[in-house]
Amino acid sequence: VLAPLFEAVPNFSEGRDASKISRITQAVRAVSGVRILGFHSDPDHNRSVLTFAGQEDRVLAGAIALAKACAAELDLASQSGEHPRMGVLDVLPFVPLEGATMNDAVRLANRAGESLGSFGFSVYLYGSAATTQHRSSLPDIRRGGYEGVASRFRDPMWKPDYGPSTLDPHIGAVAVGARPFLVAFNAYLDTDDVEVARTVARQIRESGGGLPAVRALGFGVGGKAQVSMNLTDLEQTAVPVALEAVRSAAADLGASVESTELVGLAPLEAVLQTARYYLGLRELDAHHVLESNLYGQPDSRSS
Amino acid sequence: VLAPLFEAVPNFSEGRDASKISRITQAVRAVSGVRILGFHSDPDHNRSVLTFAGQEDRVLAGAIALAKACAAELDLASQSGEHPRMGVLDVLPFVPLEGATMNDAVRLANRAGESLGSFGFSVYLYGSAATTQHRSSLPDIRRGGYEGVASRFRDPMWKPDYGPSTLDPHIGAVAVGARPFLVAFNAYLDTDDVEVARTVARQIRESGGGLPAVRALGFGVGGKAQVSMNLTDLEQTAVPVALEAVRSAAADLGASVESTELVGLAPLEAVLQTARYYLGLRELDAHHVLESNLYGQPDSRSS
Repeated sequence: VLAPLFEAVPNFSEGRDASKISRITQAVRAVSGVRILGFHSDPDHNRSVLTFAGQEDRVLAGAIALAKACAAELDLASQSGEHPRMGVLDVLPFVPLEGATMNDAVRLANRAGESLGSFGFSVYLYGSAATTQHRSSLPDIRRGGYEGVASRFRDPMWKPDYGPSTLDPHIGAVAVGARPFLVAFNAYLDTDDVEVARTVARQIRESGGGLPAVRALGFGVGGKAQVSMNLTDLEQTAVPVALEAVRSAAADLGASVESTELVGLAPLEAVLQTARYYLGLRELDAHHVLESNLYGQPDSRSS
Repeated sequence: VLAPLFEAVPNFSEGRDASKISRITQAVRAVSGVRILGFHSDPDHNRSVLTFAGQEDRVLAGAIALAKACAAELDLASQSGEHPRMGVLDVLPFVPLEGATMNDAVRLANRAGESLGSFGFSVYLYGSAATTQHRSSLPDIRRGGYEGVASRFRDPMWKPDYGPSTLDPHIGAVAVGARPFLVAFNAYLDTDDVEVARTVARQIRESGGGLPAVRALGFGVGGKAQVSMNLTDLEQTAVPVALEAVRSAAADLGASVESTELVGLAPLEAVLQTARYYLGLRELDAHHVLESNLYGQPDSRSS
């Protein structure tokens, strides 16, 4: 039996002080069973993003350790940056990985939210974990940053899901949520005309009546028109299906795809789907991949 | 630092007696650090194939444990079967996996050969480990089975690479070698005409002047013409390149590819190559795959 795995992608409000950042991330690294997948600090926004993964209890322990370290190391009252921060730990999304469902991630978000609430964070659940429609989107929750949250705090529509009855000015609020894994996939066109990329993006994205679970924007990058996509559910729209839609829409405008790129991590299934699609494979899953058998999950090793 | 990994695919001469088979495979399972990837017994050929993998010393220990168990459990003098066996442990190929080179596998084959020779096996090195050209192919070494080996034993051309000065009639000889990982990839055509598959196979395989590191045969399988391929070096010919060659050769004969299948295990790189090829990806390697970061090699976990 495979233990479900989760990813956490916390954003915390410190991107400049290396020693504080180090102590905060070290708090997560010290949690056994947690694997760090990525880290990025942004001094301009004075903000850092840590990505880590593991089984539910391990990710929960990592998130709690991180929140406590943020509360101990940072003080929102003296923090500044371009990003509209609302707390020392600003956003804490949980993503279901192998073996986990979105419902599992919602449960994990609630467990984390309850725990963070118990030591002073005002917690708003968002995304799939949201308890009400008007609080499902992150921008809505943190509109106006800390000051905005503070001004809405007594409004029953904005009573936090977990946490103290008053907003702590040093710790602030945190949005804790559940969301799908995002595959960031970009296609570069053989034109420098950004309008072509924008038109393609409008046609293929879900909001324009295109492919389900696809968000897309057109940009100019390095002198090339780029269609930048987020695929939020590979079961609904796989990478090759998105690419073929871009190729088709671009061809209607006299353009073609020169190259593509996957930004960040992609699940193995994204690559397997692509091979199945183009090779016409009768079947191909992770069990057919040598490395999955060599390593696999720690729990599945006793084969 | 990643520790190089190896696969061993020993064939031993027992495919009927379940308790003997169980004791032999159990000897390998008992070796720590060895992961069993597959097992297949064939009663008609009275022969079994075990596939296992691990780091060099672990695979070596597994191979030695297997050889000792074969010598203890089996007796070639009382063994029979359709396959032209020459020893209780008949063939022992080592395959370089992640982080390992063919030279590493040749060294491992020599270590295993020397050890097996020291406890009674007459060892012929074959494949990339062969010490002379006329002994590089497996069929040449085991021509005539045990009796053939016995008749050639005093010929200086057939002096074993390792082992005793006389051939043990109970243990026999073993071919110990190093060979590349084989990807078995089949394409089914939209015709029942096996001749079409045979013609395509002749055109695309290396021996017919086609693609390097590709072996191919045409068969009729389930009423469909099948082009059955072994890809022995994905750096020379990747899966999508082989498929496109089949598609092109089939099209010249008025046929097309209906579906494909990967038989057994394929390395992750085979799938990544396919995605790169068809998506036009600027780059994609194992580091971009979420699961590779989640699990990876045990030694690389301390990230």
